[in-house]
This record gives sequence, structure tokens and C-alpha cells, in this order.
Amino acid sequence: MSIHYPAGVKTPSTSPEMEKKKKKATSQKKKLHFKVQPGNRGMAFEDDINQTNQYYLDHDLAVIHKKPTPINIVKVDYTHGAKITQAYFEEPSTTDYNGIYQGRYIDFEAKSTHSKTSFPLSNIAPQQITHLKAVMKHGAIAFFLINIVPLNETYLLPAEYVCAFYEEKPRKSIPLEEIKKHGHLVKEGYAPRLDYLPILDEFFLK
Amino acid sequence: MSIHYPAGVKTPSTSPEMEKKKKKATSQKKKLHFKVQPGNRGMAFEDDINQTNQYYLDHDLAVIHKKPTPINIVKVDYTHGAKITQAYFEEPSTTDYNGIYQGRYIDFEAKSTHSKTSFPLSNIAPQQITHLKAVMKHGAIAFFLINIVPLNETYLLPAEYVCAFYEEKPRKSIPLEEIKKHGHLVKEGYAPRLDYLPILDEFFLK
Repeated sequence: MSIHYPAGVKTPSTSPEMEKKKKKATSQKKKLHFKVQPGNRGMAFEDDINQTNQYYLDHDLAVIHKKPTPINIVKVDYTHGAKITQAYFEEPSTTDYNGIYQGRYIDFEAKSTHSKTSFPLSNIAPQQITHLKAVMKHGAIAFFLINIVPLNETYLLPAEYVCAFYEEKPRKSIPLEEIKKHGHLVKEGYAPRLDYLPILDEFFLK
Repeated sequence: MSIHYPAGVKTPSTSPEMEKKKKKATSQKKKLHFKVQPGNRGMAFEDDINQTNQYYLDHDLAVIHKKPTPINIVKVDYTHGAKITQAYFEEPSTTDYNGIYQGRYIDFEAKSTHSKTSFPLSNIAPQQITHLKAVMKHGAIAFFLINIVPLNETYLLPAEYVCAFYEEKPRKSIPLEEIKKHGHLVKEGYAPRLDYLPILDEFFLK
């Protein structure tokens, strides 16, 4: 079977690691029901996180869910059941993921970037910073999962650091070396795909 | 201005309490942008909870949000911005509300019933019971807010009780006297409209 890789994604070698990724990409493509475009790497990342959270749920480790995309519904046709015929995407006022782990409230946002050198802060909405600061004040474990697409690496970066950087630094992006210094590389695998809980154990719960 | 009360709702007397409610109903009607139907009492209840959570957020007491309604998007027209032209409502796999209070993960579902004598369990999806049991296992404060429409009363009922009733009792609804016995009447007011945090202080956090 031939795999049609999206533009901008390197043709993989045939190492077992890459074979695994190939399979993963194929299954994700099927699930998405549309052709994978370069911009949809973000969706594959989201899929990895959702599958990780499902793994945590199935193994009774944590209960963390992605919130549905906020949508402003304008028209619904009730002729045959309820079919939404006019609606618009809304700006999220919070982050995408929250839940509970080890009795603690967990809150995070996941973002992927195509930049090899930095994470552009334009990816983060101001109200998300406000939200993260509020939950941290009440005792949450809050962070970002940042996927650096060209490196195929994901970092867990504490929200405390991101919020401080966002508000104090006159810069439009967080340099990669800063992400590496203040963040933690998330171990990738088959299941869970992005094992971020051990990082919480080590750096937030000790 | 005349108010068109929905069928099944008593015409109010002219007591100050009722006048206040009248005003509230009118402002809610404006907000909803459509005629209030009997089934929409649930939306007014939702509105009360959202305004309560906003009050808690504004006063730095808790960060609790309603999750957006899960929607399965089928078609999006990108001609002028992004307009969703075909989408369907999905069954929620979790509860509607979650967040953090006093460092604790909070999770609840809100339901209103038109029955004067009991709360029908058909209002609760099996996966919501599964979800509530999972979060409780991990240390959540979990409950239901049940609005008894004909009595104009709201009760906070611990999820632990509801889950046990759901699974152990061969009954299709929780009788009102059981709700009163195991639940706690939520104080209604102007702001916050449904002050449920004091109940958490007294019965979950002590």
C-alpha cells in the first residue's frame, strides 16, 4: 500500500521506528476523514494527545479530556433530527485540556510549531494566559505541550514560565534553547504516545 | 410590556420576588434570541450557573467553566471566513462543568426537571456516571445540581449518592424526598445566582 505523505513531511526511512510512525500516520489519516495537509500536523499532534489521555483513562491513571471546540450555533434545521446548518468557530476562553491526576487539577494547552528555532507566542491567546494564571493561583498543575514539528519533539513547558515570559519579555517567541532549558522532553512511544505524566510526577508532585 | 409565559409555568403574582424573576426571565429571553419554550427553562438554569461561575471567577473564588457542547463538524465553507454549514450534536462523554476550587478538582452536571416528585435518571447518560466515578476515584469533588422547576428550587446532590442510586436501585427516578435528604438546597440570590460553593465548604472540604 502506498502512503501519500503530505508536502513538507520528509519521506521516511524504513527503520522500525519509522515503520511504526508510518502505520500511525495511516491510521490517523483514516480517522481524520480528509486528506492530511501540512497544516494538519497539528491534528496529528492532537490525536496523539487524545490517544495518550485515553490510555491514561483506560489504565486508571488520570482523567484528562480535551474540551470540545467552542462553536456559536446560528441555525439548526429540525426537519430530520437536529442538523446545524449555520455556525461559527469561537475563540476559546480557556485551554484545551483539563482533568485530574493524583488528586490534583490539571490544565494545559497543546500547540505545534513549524519553526525549528522558536515557539511564536502569537499561538497563545491572551485570555488563555489569564486563564492559566487563574488556575495556578488556585493550585492547578498547568503547562503547555509544545510540539516542534521539524524536530519531531514535544516539550512540556510549565505555564508559570510561559506566562512570565509572555508578560515580561519584549519578544514575540520563546527561543528553542529556552524551551529546552525550562521544559522537559516528552517521551514518545506507541502507547501512551506522549507520556507526560512521569514529568508531572518528577517536577510538579514531588 | 407583556411577558408571554410558556405553557406549564404559573402566571406569577406581583410580589417583589416575582417581579425580580420576571425581569430576569425577560433579560434571559433577550439573550437567548428566541421565544422561551417550556423546555428552555433548562437554558435559564444553565444561564444562572454560568453567571454564578462568572461571579466566582471575577471574585477570584474559583475557576469553573461550562464545557462547550460537543459537535461533529461535517462541512465547513471557507468562502468568507470559516462558516460551518453541516454539523450535528454529539453525546457528551463527560459532564458539563469542571474546574478548580480550593486546590481541588471540581466536576459536576446540571439538570433540570419538570417533575414535582422525583428526578428521572433518564436525564443522566451512562457514560456520565462512568466519568463521575472515575474522577471521584482520583479525588474529585463531584456532584449534580438539580433544578426542580415547579418548586423553583435547586439541590446539590453528591455524585457519590447519585452513582450508587443509579447502579443499585431498581428505580427510574430519585424521589424528591431522597434528594432533600441526601442533597443540599442551593441558596438563590442576585449575585451569585446559585451560591453552591458554601455547600462544598461545609460538606466536602471540612
